[in-house]
Amino acid sequence: MKETIFKQKHLLSIEDLSPEEIDLILEIAESFVEVSTRNIKKFPALKGKTVVNLFFESSTRTRSSFEIAAKRLSADLINFSASISSLKKGESLRDTVLTLEAMNPHIIVIRHSASGSPKYLTTFARSSIINAGDGFHEHPTQALLDALTIKQKFKTLRGLKISIIGDILHSRVARSNIILHHKMGNEISLIGPPSLVPKEFEQMGAKVYYDLKEGVKNSDIVMMLRVQEERGGGNYFPSIREYRKLFEINQETFSLAKESAILMHPGPLNRDVEIETSLADSDKSVILQQVTNGIAVRMAVLYLLKGERNEIIN
Amino acid sequence: MKETIFKQKHLLSIEDLSPEEIDLILEIAESFVEVSTRNIKKFPALKGKTVVNLFFESSTRTRSSFEIAAKRLSADLINFSASISSLKKGESLRDTVLTLEAMNPHIIVIRHSASGSPKYLTTFARSSIINAGDGFHEHPTQALLDALTIKQKFKTLRGLKISIIGDILHSRVARSNIILHHKMGNEISLIGPPSLVPKEFEQMGAKVYYDLKEGVKNSDIVMMLRVQEERGGGNYFPSIREYRKLFEINQETFSLAKESAILMHPGPLNRDVEIETSLADSDKSVILQQVTNGIAVRMAVLYLLKGERNEIIN
Amino acid sequence: MKETIFKQKHLLSIEDLSPEEIDLILEIAESFVEVSTRNIKKFPALKGKTVVNLFFESSTRTRSSFEIAAKRLSADLINFSASISSLKKGESLRDTVLTLEAMNPHIIVIRHSASGSPKYLTTFARSSIINAGDGFHEHPTQALLDALTIKQKFKTLRGLKISIIGDILHSRVARSNIILHHKMGNEISLIGPPSLVPKEFEQMGAKVYYDLKEGVKNSDIVMMLRVQEERGGGNYFPSIREYRKLFEINQETFSLAKESAILMHPGPLNRDVEIETSLADSDKSVILQQVTNGIAVRMAVLYLLKGERNEIIN
Repeated sequence: MKETIFKQKHLLSIEDLSPEEIDLILEIAESFVEVSTRNIKKFPALKGKTVVNLFFESSTRTRSSFEIAAKRLSADLINFSASISSLKKGESLRDTVLTLEAMNPHIIVIRHSASGSPKYLTTFARSSIINAGDGFHEHPTQALLDALTIKQKFKTLRGLKISIIGDILHSRVARSNIILHHKMGNEISLIGPPSLVPKEFEQMGAKVYYDLKEGVKNSDIVMMLRVQEERGGGNYFPSIREYRKLFEINQETFSLAKESAILMHPGPLNRDVEIETSLADSDKSVILQQVTNGIAVRMAVLYLLKGERNEIIN
Repeated sequence: MKETIFKQKHLLSIEDLSPEEIDLILEIAESFVEVSTRNIKKFPALKGKTVVNLFFESSTRTRSSFEIAAKRLSADLINFSASISSLKKGESLRDTVLTLEAMNPHIIVIRHSASGSPKYLTTFARSSIINAGDGFHEHPTQALLDALTIKQKFKTLRGLKISIIGDILHSRVARSNIILHHKMGNEISLIGPPSLVPKEFEQMGAKVYYDLKEGVKNSDIVMMLRVQEERGGGNYFPSIREYRKLFEINQETFSLAKESAILMHPGPLNRDVEIETSLADSDKSVILQQVTNGIAVRMAVLYLLKGERNEIIN
Repeated sequence: MKETIFKQKHLLSIEDLSPEEIDLILEIAESFVEVSTRNIKKFPALKGKTVVNLFFESSTRTRSSFEIAAKRLSADLINFSASISSLKKGESLRDTVLTLEAMNPHIIVIRHSASGSPKYLTTFARSSIINAGDGFHEHPTQALLDALTIKQKFKTLRGLKISIIGDILHSRVARSNIILHHKMGNEISLIGPPSLVPKEFEQMGAKVYYDLKEGVKNSDIVMMLRVQEERGGGNYFPSIREYRKLFEINQETFSLAKESAILMHPGPLNRDVEIETSLADSDKSVILQQVTNGIAVRMAVLYLLKGERNEIIN
């Protein structure tokens, strides 16, 4: 069985995955895509298993994407949110998760503002941990769904040029994508103001550009990041207006990429800030396809992790 | 098959339905009522389908009524609420729904304060849209569950006199009921202060009364609307006390309706404001039966819409 | 069938249960524990039944424990919380529950700050009511899961000495445990400052101690209660620091209990306030086992109540 390639008990980061494991996840995801768009039916793979959505940061798309994925695999899904949790009563993350763990869930999907918290959980949890975004660190299922979208378009994940534009410094989406495309041997250009794209990122195998036109030239993939408005106004860039003038992708700047290039964005969009509306809604854009692929990729990850618990032997 | 009468892909309004479609919905709902009160079991009709509750206004009864209905049909139900959605990050309704749509749900149940928003969704969504209340416009499943309750009592939906009392102007429940009973050829009287019941409503086929006793005379159905307390105090009526004196239904005023008349209210009640407690709890009241019928009517609507998605052909 | 021992339609309190009923619940729970820790699968016992979690106080562990238990028995679970309910619109508890009832749920699990509210519901509700904590009154499933944990350790629920330490006065957990262990004929010592452990508790069959060392001596079970920090600072005890000095359980004070003694806590912990961290994490502690047993006990209770609704015959 090909699935024996997959060695992970958890999905913490793209860093942890081999190119073969990435290929396998995408292959399984593709089979789920096919079924899902035709005659959707439930798969029994996780029947009787409990998946917990433990979100300490609010989220619509990621949380519900995992919820739909888990339910399509027949799992029982329990939503936890920080606002109703005992954390408000001063309980530590460790005690919260240990309590949750004692309820014998099979998979815990965690989003947390602290980088490294999913990995920390694996030091004491017996269930499989999935990182749904941790601080400025990684957001592996986002990079995987991006990769699936790219593969659907180009029939390959190798030999491509990807440009990522915006606040690279604070973006776990960017980090996971950089690591993934570096593993796959793709050419990566990172574009933005120096305050948001430090030269140090070149150590990750990317090239840094401070000029949008120069960086985007000849790209197969143009991936925009969301502008965090609270970072404007003198902290990282002078103003939204200034930022837009220099780094918005629009018909003109996008035309410098390859003829066959696609436009990506993890959402939600700031229309006419980092992305021109007419371009976002054009047939160059695969933004909604990314969302669709999110379900399939998360189904594939849940399927591969299987939800086998380590039993304690002590 | 009788079900071929039903031509709708969405349920946006009573306006859109033919009398035959209304009859069909109620007939199917009646069969669900019968089963539900005996030995409840799950129906497989929506197995593998995803229903999204997208509520931008808070709601206990409608949201959970749809949730129970969907689950009894074996659908997967995903709850969205505005407070956790990306709308807080400034995303437009269109982008929120497009994102949701990309997850391939089959049916989206939407409540929104903007009249017409469910219809707007149909211009770009591929799933079936159900209006669970839009601004001052319509609340079609409420009118349908009211109609089912009326039909259970009178064995017919024709040739009846219905009086609706209260804030007609701002009530989507009233509007949907007026349209439904006008379609069915029933006599409609609308009762309340002139500020809340403008004469213009007569163009909808109703008769307007500013005197409770006069309007309620000879009614088969007396339907009270909830007083929105924030409308009192000089805006639409002088005070709650004043309002109550003129428009509260009580044993005395209710006795002017027919001997066999029933008392309805969409809930939640303001006891001893628009409705006298002893009357609300009497055997004239069918208020709780309305709630029970809500499940059956929503099951019928979900069942008829089937959740077949339009596939894109472009 | 042994199950005919169980005479309850509701689970309102430990007070209502006979020792035989308690034994039966634990016996069934034990069989669920066994299955749950091996190869978890769904049980069809509550298939097609609707369980409502109606929580008027926030809670992570109890709410989700009931949710997981219900789902493992194949029930449909609907979460209600006070914040989204019509109570905000001024509806009474009675009207809220009557509305909910009209949706024909089979079991309502209620947590409410008013002592006696679950019992009040039984006066007009047709579904089975489970008390998930009512004011300072009872929290019967907590006492049952504690009892299961004790029985797993000592192979019996009789002839033991249990010490309960902390704010007995305001603790429904303590009350339910006192009643349960008094029924079972166990020796009970209650320990804390006089302001939190009035002498009157001796009428419940317990012995009151104001000295931790004296009370804890020779115990089989040491059960700590959570310090409610808002009670410190002059109201019930001078300060957290003072409280800790006198009533924290630590390696030293715990050593006065029997060699085989176990340490319990309903969670969430105030580490190094009422309980020393090294002790909480030692192999004397069964705190996480309590959480695990919560699922099994709630499954047993849901299973025994069966969710048969009284049908109205009027």
